[in-house]
Formats: sequence, structure tokens, C-alpha cells
Amino acid sequence: MRWLAEVNVRLRPGIADPEGQTIAGGLRALGFEVADVRAGKLLRVTFEAVDRERAESAVAQMCSRLLANPVMETADWELSADEPAAVGIES
Amino acid sequence: MRWLAEVNVRLRPGIADPEGQTIAGGLRALGFEVADVRAGKLLRVTFEAVDRERAESAVAQMCSRLLANPVMETADWELSADEPAAVGIES
Repeated sequence: MRWLAEVNVRLRPGIADPEGQTIAGGLRALGFEVADVRAGKLLRVTFEAVDRERAESAVAQMCSRLLANPVMETADWELSADEPAAVGIES
Repeated sequence: MRWLAEVNVRLRPGIADPEGQTIAGGLRALGFEVADVRAGKLLRVTFEAVDRERAESAVAQMCSRLLANPVMETADWELSADEPAAVGIES
């Protein structure tokens, strides 16, 4: 069964965020009254797992082993069953 | 009034995503049955606007003018009133 995990990876509070600061500076230069920008990653992972429990466990492992650096980042996710597009009409 | 916009910037379908492919390769090397990974950005923008209508308009402009490249990317966002932390107790 196929699953879609939308994983948000954010920098922890207090960790310097040069990308966010650069974006904030750009927005201010365009005239927006921006107080702060924090930049993170949005990863849409489609993967196979037999049931929801194992899918949850797999995503947690993906985050801790590769997707997020636990020293600097936090990860949260939403998991949903991924309906495959009608690629082949197999009976 | 201060607002928080959580802006998701995603690559349009069909646009090559080398970052996502690299992450997918890394996850497969760790043994996960990953079909696909798409990488995007999650930007948390705090900014000033007098009311919700102008805040919505400001975010739409930020996206079209700086945050997303409309040729390759789509942006969507959630807007919420940002409760300022109790930094100073001013009356």
C-alpha cells in the first residue's frame, strides 16, 4: 500500500537562519513590513508500507536517520494513503 | 497587527527536482521503499498588516514578487493572527 508523507522540517528556535534573513531583507526592500522569516523544508515522500502503523514508524525513522538533523531541526508530518493515479487499468 | 503566513512553495509537476531525487536515493540506500520525493520550501513569514484582507493581499504579492518563481513553482499559504510573545509588558 502506498502512502504520502508531507514532512515539514523546521530549524529549531534560536538556530541562525541566513536563508530566512536574506528572504526577509528582500521582502523589506520591496516595501513589505516583515518582522521575521524562517525558512524550512517541505518534503513530500511517497513510499510503500503494509499498514498505517508501519508507515508512521517508517516516516519517523526517515526523519531521524536522514531528513532532519535533530540537533538543529525538528520534523513533523502528515501521513495519508496515496491514491495512485490511474496509470494502468489492471484487473 | 501582526500576522503569520506559512507559505508552502512546491515545484510544479513535471519540473525536475534533483534535491528530491537525491533524498529519495538516500532513503532507498537506507532500506526504505520510497517511490518518490518532491522537495519544496516552507517559509514562515511574520509581518504587519492592518486587517486580514490586506494581509492576504500582501502574502499573495510576496509570493508572486519574491517567494516563488511562477514558471516553476506554485505557492499556497495559511494565514493566522500572530500572538506576539510577552516580550515587554507595556501598557
